[in-house]
Formats: sequence, C-alpha cells, structure tokens
Amino acid sequence: MKNKPVFGIIGGNGGIGKTFSAELRKLGYKTLIASRSSKLSPEACAQQSDITVISVPIRATVQVIRKLGPLLGKNQALMDFTSLKEMPVKEMLACTRAEVIGCHPVFGPSVSTLCNQVIVLTPGRGTAWFSRVKKIFLKTGAVIKVAKPAEHDRIMAVVQGLMHFTSITLINTLKTLNFSHEEIDSFSSPVYRIRMDFACRILNQNPELYADIEMLNNSISSVLSAYLAENKKLFSAVKHRDREAFIRAFKRASDYLGSKKKSAELKTDKLIDFSSLL
Amino acid sequence: MKNKPVFGIIGGNGGIGKTFSAELRKLGYKTLIASRSSKLSPEACAQQSDITVISVPIRATVQVIRKLGPLLGKNQALMDFTSLKEMPVKEMLACTRAEVIGCHPVFGPSVSTLCNQVIVLTPGRGTAWFSRVKKIFLKTGAVIKVAKPAEHDRIMAVVQGLMHFTSITLINTLKTLNFSHEEIDSFSSPVYRIRMDFACRILNQNPELYADIEMLNNSISSVLSAYLAENKKLFSAVKHRDREAFIRAFKRASDYLGSKKKSAELKTDKLIDFSSLL
Repeated sequence: MKNKPVFGIIGGNGGIGKTFSAELRKLGYKTLIASRSSKLSPEACAQQSDITVISVPIRATVQVIRKLGPLLGKNQALMDFTSLKEMPVKEMLACTRAEVIGCHPVFGPSVSTLCNQVIVLTPGRGTAWFSRVKKIFLKTGAVIKVAKPAEHDRIMAVVQGLMHFTSITLINTLKTLNFSHEEIDSFSSPVYRIRMDFACRILNQNPELYADIEMLNNSISSVLSAYLAENKKLFSAVKHRDREAFIRAFKRASDYLGSKKKSAELKTDKLIDFSSLL
Repeated sequence: MKNKPVFGIIGGNGGIGKTFSAELRKLGYKTLIASRSSKLSPEACAQQSDITVISVPIRATVQVIRKLGPLLGKNQALMDFTSLKEMPVKEMLACTRAEVIGCHPVFGPSVSTLCNQVIVLTPGRGTAWFSRVKKIFLKTGAVIKVAKPAEHDRIMAVVQGLMHFTSITLINTLKTLNFSHEEIDSFSSPVYRIRMDFACRILNQNPELYADIEMLNNSISSVLSAYLAENKKLFSAVKHRDREAFIRAFKRASDYLGSKKKSAELKTDKLIDFSSLL
C-alpha cells in the first residue's frame, strides 16, 4: 500500500466529484478524473487508481459499477458518492473483488468549506481502505458518520426525501390557489420568507437527481405515507374546530422535541436577524 | 387633534404590545398600559387615550372590544393587533363609534428591530387616524402594507396557517416513525437542519395562540385542503415510480417561481454558511 493513495474520480468534472477532487488535491493527494470531456477513459482511470470513486447520476451508477467493478483487483477499493446506499453497495459487492465503500457527502457542491459538513460512510467489504479513507476525509474538517446502507437510506428518506417532497407540494399549493408568490412575500414574516427561500432553493436543483432520490429509496413510501396520515389527522382537527385535538397534536410534537426547541429558537433568532441584512 | 397622540395599549405588558409600547416611547409618544398587573383599568386606559390598541389573545379580543368599544367617542380610534383581521374588524365596526383600524404586526416579540419587518394595516372606519398611525409606524423602519381584512386573512392562511400546520405534521411524522431526532440531525444536511430548527421554533410557541390562528381564519380550510391534495398527487407519483409525473410536478413548481429561485439560492447559500458558525 503506497503512502499517498491515488483517487480516480469517475464523473469528477461536475458537482460533488469536483468539490472532492479539489479538496483531496489541497491535502496533497493525486486525483485522476474521467469525465465525458476528459482524455482519460473510465477504464484507464480505474486501473491507475487505488480508490475508484463513482460520482455520476444515480441512474447511471449501476451501469458504471458493472463496467468498472470487474477491472479492479482485491488490493484496490471501489467507492460511490450516491445519495442512496443500499442499491449501489449491493451492486458493488456483486461486481468486484475490490474493497467496497459506500459514501454519501450530505451536502451540495455549493458549500464553501467541508468543515462541519456530514459525510456518511457505509462499510461494504474490507477494512484497510475504509479506515484510510475515513482518516483522509477527517482531514477536510468534515464530520464522518458510519452506518449500514439500509439505516442510511431510512434516515435520508426524511433528510432528503421528505424535505424535497414537501417543498414541491408547498410551492404547487400556492400555484394551485392562484397566489402571486411576490405578493405573499411582501406580506410575510421572516420565518415564512426563510422557509420559502429554502423551498425555492430545492426547486432550483436538478429534477432528475431529485426524482432518483425520491424513487429509488426503499424507505420513502413509509415515510411519506406517515406524513400524509399526520396531515389528514391534523386537518380533520382544524376543519371540525376541534381545539383540544389540535393542541394535543401540538403538544405531542413539542414534547418529542424536548430541549431542542429552546436551542432551535436561539439559533433561528440569529438566522432571522442575519437574513434581514441580506 | 393633539400634536402627539396618546396610545393606550390593552395587554401591553406582554408579547407584541410590549414591543410596540417600547418603540412608541422611543419615538416620543406617550403610552398608557392596561394589563392584568397594572393599576390602570382597561376602561380608564381607553378613555384617556387617543388610540386604544387591543393586544390580547385572539380568543379574548371580541370580549375586550365589546367592553371598551362603546366607551370611545368618534374622535378616538380603536385598533387591534390580532393575527386575524376579518373577525376583529367586523366586531370593532359593530361595537364603537370611534375610528377603526385593523393592524397585524407580522413578526414575533423577539425581533431586535422593527426595521424591514412587515406591519399590515386594514382600514375599518375613518381616514384621519389611519394616516397618522401609518406615518408613525413608518418611523419605526417597518414596512407598511395595506389590505382588506379578508385579503389579509387569505394570505395569512399560507404565511402562518400552512407554515405552522406543516411544522407540526413534520415533527409528528418523526415521532410516529420512532426516529430519534438527535440521530437524524447528526446525519443531516445544512438545509435539513435549518428546516428542522424553524419547525422546532414554531413548536416552542404558545399552542393556544397557534390554535386560534388555525381555527379562526376563514381561509384556512381551502389552503390546507389544497396542500393535502398536492401531497396525495405527488405521493401517488412516487409510489407508482411514475418518474414523468414527478418531474412534471417539480417543473410546474419550478416554473411558477421563475427568477425567485436563483435569488433564493444565493440568499440561502449565505444563510447556510452563517448557520455553520452557530
């Protein structure tokens, strides 16, 4: 095992692959890039790298794993950057003899620093490359979380799936009701404006990526179905002016959060003050 | 009409009444306060003031209007700070000969400055006090919006009603699914964390106030019912892996937002960077 492993990033000229390639180079690691515009082919890139990182759209991931996995030897490692982990890790385990690491950087390419950003690692096969990769990623200042692929996907069904879903439905509700969003904004509270800005941010992303995140996660249906049921229940309380049922639902949620509520209020006070300057 | 009108704030020792009393005093206006702990009775306060401002919980507003309205003469003004406007303005018009102004400061008592905060005024009866109040409020740095009571309530059904509603149902979904919110947080993206913090902020407010906002607004049912329908439609697309329907819904929302998406992304980039320092 060489002192400084070589990273080969497949799809490294766009999005999160580019961010990592830049960070790894800053730390002194050699990175090779195979993208649609590079001279280096994905096959050559994989063969010349210690760790091959697949950073392509989710739908294309399986195909790339099937093409490159068989080319790797057991002293190499195969890793992916997909937002889901069950499906790609299963596919990597089936297609290669190399060590297998699932990885999900839980942030977009626009962050200005990896400091305090979360990177989830899901072990696949082998421990040697896993612990080296973990150490290297820690040097970027990121927070490393380790989870099983299915556990990761269940959490992401909320962190990404539910958040994207509710942003789309919120905006479509305004459209359906024929509201002018500019008019509502002009009448609105800081909390509303920030909530809307984050929904708009999500709607400014790639619909293809968000369709993948929503459609290929095995836990999404149960999460969305629970959300729909909560909405139906609370709507019934509001519609029937059942004040006690409404307050019961409020208190159930409030009790569940415990001390997080107070710290969130202090933090959002600061965000609200900051946002009034933007 | 005196040069500097006297404001009498009923309920002025708590919440938004206190915020306004402090702001008006800073601007050199005399304010009288009648609260449960003050020596001054609401009746005496109303009789000694030019503008009587009712700043009590929504449920108590009608009762206070009925008690004080008849005591006022036509040279005085009666105003309320309720989050809803149809019901209290109607009640004020019925109970007093005084000028009537509906007012909704669209922010909580925790803001550190009124600068750029929105205050909605809904004209009731008379123009003399209305234009004076508008000028005085402009001096605080707030943005003044004027609307009819029903128009105000329709917009607030989204700005407050839908926002509170979806925060409660989001948190109850996590509770129902037996998630540990601390664990999800530790795996999460900055966007998710901020969204959660704002939901937690809402759950740290007074459930009684939020029940009033939800139950006494005539436009709430149609807004929530549209939201439920959008959720049901998008869930059906996800459940049946109907990629085209999902992308259609995404693009519908995205097109509706137009250029707001780009500015929201730039603004939220800054909020995300700022939040990583908190």
